[in-house]
Amino acid sequence: MKLYDYLPSGNSYKVRLLISYLGLNYEHVDINIIKGESQTDGFKSVNPAGQIPLLELSDGRRIAESNAIMYFLAEGTPYWPKNAFDQAKCLQWMFFEQYKHEPSIAVARYIHHYAMEQRKSELPALTKRGYLALDIMEAHLADNLWFVVNDSGDGRTIADVALYAYTHVAGEGGFDLTQYPNIMAWLDRFSDHPNHIRITDVPSS
Amino acid sequence: MKLYDYLPSGNSYKVRLLISYLGLNYEHVDINIIKGESQTDGFKSVNPAGQIPLLELSDGRRIAESNAIMYFLAEGTPYWPKNAFDQAKCLQWMFFEQYKHEPSIAVARYIHHYAMEQRKSELPALTKRGYLALDIMEAHLADNLWFVVNDSGDGRTIADVALYAYTHVAGEGGFDLTQYPNIMAWLDRFSDHPNHIRITDVPSS
Repeated sequence: MKLYDYLPSGNSYKVRLLISYLGLNYEHVDINIIKGESQTDGFKSVNPAGQIPLLELSDGRRIAESNAIMYFLAEGTPYWPKNAFDQAKCLQWMFFEQYKHEPSIAVARYIHHYAMEQRKSELPALTKRGYLALDIMEAHLADNLWFVVNDSGDGRTIADVALYAYTHVAGEGGFDLTQYPNIMAWLDRFSDHPNHIRITDVPSS
Repeated sequence: MKLYDYLPSGNSYKVRLLISYLGLNYEHVDINIIKGESQTDGFKSVNPAGQIPLLELSDGRRIAESNAIMYFLAEGTPYWPKNAFDQAKCLQWMFFEQYKHEPSIAVARYIHHYAMEQRKSELPALTKRGYLALDIMEAHLADNLWFVVNDSGDGRTIADVALYAYTHVAGEGGFDLTQYPNIMAWLDRFSDHPNHIRITDVPSS
């Protein structure tokens, strides 16, 4: 399989991290979104939404949306819980991630990282919303080691992978994580995995 | 089971519509989000994210996020496809709905509906993003009756339910659907179901 991917992207990192944990083989295809490579007619013929990551299977079929790709790779492995309620809770946190967390924390990181002067006026609202998302995570982690109850494997699910991706680089978006001890402990717990890779790393296979 | 719900909300409507299609019994608990009832300490002790819909099972366990609730209700029924690839495509469209469609089309509808003068400056950007989401749906529906291949039931999946909810009221957000013949035909096809209900209806049970 082939992953259309941009290394600094947290959404792409989710998929690469899961591929590394699962020890899968894949081909990396670099799409530089900053240079506009995801908005060309060529790439849009592959993914009409003009987004990475995009997974292409060996038979040519394709899946977009980072969390949908993770579902496809995780289903039947210890990273996807076994019963329907826990699966729904896993999806609940993944939809929270895409609705409340990524649109504030990842976008603030993007504006900071690329020093986009014309978008700096968005930062106060993004910062407020991002901290609200972190508050919800912090409260949940006061009583839980991971985001979802999962009897399989070591307890991690793809909900943890989804939330780790942009939380661990929230500092690059101007967020101060030191006021969130439960999140800090969860980040440490999460990255303590023999196949862990950093955000711009390509898994060895 | 109990659904914390606000009748004009498209996100709540998704769940109510699926409950009606599946012929399930439930108790309706009205939470008026316009009057701030989802932001009280009482409701936040039930759902820390302060959002409806929220499903409470008879044993007290709860699921938030409309699309996660739909997964829980649809899993094992004809509204959730049988194989992992089609399931992932179903989630792909549901994440698209929550990331690209709802944050533009539903928010534009909200600003129009409640004549929020102080937020009208957001409308040009929301309108542009909403039309991009509709373009993607229109192109997909040129070659497909439904959003996902599904051999079960009549072909509908929860991806269709998710996208129907705010698309069929996009006009209330200022969007002109007459330029989208494939979407118009799909809306007609979708609503042609014996248990179909309108957005502010409560399913009979």
